[in-house]
Amino acid sequence: MADSKSFLRVRYVETDQMGIVHHSVYFHWMEVGRADYLRERGLSYAKMEEMGIRMPVVEAKAEFISPAKYDDEIVVRTSLAEKNRISFAFDYEIARKADGILLAKGTTRHVATDGFNRPRRVPTDVFKIIGGSVA
Amino acid sequence: MADSKSFLRVRYVETDQMGIVHHSVYFHWMEVGRADYLRERGLSYAKMEEMGIRMPVVEAKAEFISPAKYDDEIVVRTSLAEKNRISFAFDYEIARKADGILLAKGTTRHVATDGFNRPRRVPTDVFKIIGGSVA
Amino acid sequence: MADSKSFLRVRYVETDQMGIVHHSVYFHWMEVGRADYLRERGLSYAKMEEMGIRMPVVEAKAEFISPAKYDDEIVVRTSLAEKNRISFAFDYEIARKADGILLAKGTTRHVATDGFNRPRRVPTDVFKIIGGSVA
Amino acid sequence: MADSKSFLRVRYVETDQMGIVHHSVYFHWMEVGRADYLRERGLSYAKMEEMGIRMPVVEAKAEFISPAKYDDEIVVRTSLAEKNRISFAFDYEIARKADGILLAKGTTRHVATDGFNRPRRVPTDVFKIIGGSVA
Repeated sequence: MADSKSFLRVRYVETDQMGIVHHSVYFHWMEVGRADYLRERGLSYAKMEEMGIRMPVVEAKAEFISPAKYDDEIVVRTSLAEKNRISFAFDYEIARKADGILLAKGTTRHVATDGFNRPRRVPTDVFKIIGGSVA
Repeated sequence: MADSKSFLRVRYVETDQMGIVHHSVYFHWMEVGRADYLRERGLSYAKMEEMGIRMPVVEAKAEFISPAKYDDEIVVRTSLAEKNRISFAFDYEIARKADGILLAKGTTRHVATDGFNRPRRVPTDVFKIIGGSVA
Repeated sequence: MADSKSFLRVRYVETDQMGIVHHSVYFHWMEVGRADYLRERGLSYAKMEEMGIRMPVVEAKAEFISPAKYDDEIVVRTSLAEKNRISFAFDYEIARKADGILLAKGTTRHVATDGFNRPRRVPTDVFKIIGGSVA
Repeated sequence: MADSKSFLRVRYVETDQMGIVHHSVYFHWMEVGRADYLRERGLSYAKMEEMGIRMPVVEAKAEFISPAKYDDEIVVRTSLAEKNRISFAFDYEIARKADGILLAKGTTRHVATDGFNRPRRVPTDVFKIIGGSVA
């Protein structure tokens, strides 16, 4: 299945006094990206939580290439980078819609946990939806 | 008992491209203020949640008088404004420590709820700690 | 001209450990609402800043009626509440799209300033766009 | 010179509905850490900006080991990881004060820019303060 694309517009509160989007905000956008990735596959993250599955971030990184500015329309392209039954990772490319300039690239790695922050296996059906192949 | 005073320093992420602290951030600081108010009275808000009490905000307002800037040291003075067995309010004065200039004033009103967002009475001992007199 | 409507979806980062959207976030949404209000009238807030006009918030208040939850689709209805040549105010109604339930109401009051946080008059053309009638 | 230590307490707004601190918040704390690192060396970041120097983040990464919770007291230990005349990096260790448990590790890489987001050399005196040796 193709990558997922999310669209959003930079909010004023997301800027800082350098006049650019604060670097921590890109991690919010990646979160929007992976929620959309799952939703497009029929799996809302809200529903996953009701099923007792959490996907906390265990690693996050980003490279900031060109600054996003207030009011910019942003495209987040999310793809599955790795997956196995206990952890998986997403890659993100964040670009400005108007000119297609790549603003940032990032990766987040996740483990599945239950409602008490204990590791658990990803259920088979969820695993398939995320993009894993089950032999 | 005297009002509570909280001290904090403006973080870079709290600024916006106007070069001042974003107005929404003052509500974060008021939250710090009322947590300190309770902690000074021996009641951590974390403990209240374990007891099954939440204090969601039902009203919040602020008047922004002079802008806080990055790296400013801030004093939040918190006082109890009103209280009864189902709701209570705090008043806040937010000033810059260096010159004492008043930056903002605010009020938050709260109700007590249980862990499922249902209204509940404030238990007598908590009510006393918050500052209510029990006849 | 009719009120402006903005649509957004609750982000995970916008929730807190009560399992609801943090009250400070509604002020971010109101900011989205008034930017959309201006944009629909042909005036981007980014462009206003380039013209040397800032619209800092001098008062903000909200009443929180029912909590927004993660993944909810939200509608922000923004209307002009008051305006004169040095200050103006917007009213907001924030509802959940799925069932139309009103979640919060709010108001922000603004003054016009220049790039150095000094008060200035709103230029006539901007004033007209915002919704003021010029005799 | 020894590493810098910053102390802070988890704010309610920093939690999410998993009941833990949102991963993006650790990047706010790292920012506090490097501001304190500079301040302890007599260089406020606010002053650096007045001198026309910005230090935007060009890379950021973190490993999340154990979740921080609301009201936890946090220690951020900041050290200089690399430096040259156009870029430098800081390493961070974020621990819970009460039990010393390591919660997260991170790194940010920065370039020096002027007020218009153009790369510039770090001035010699600033470079020495940050920790660079000048032959």
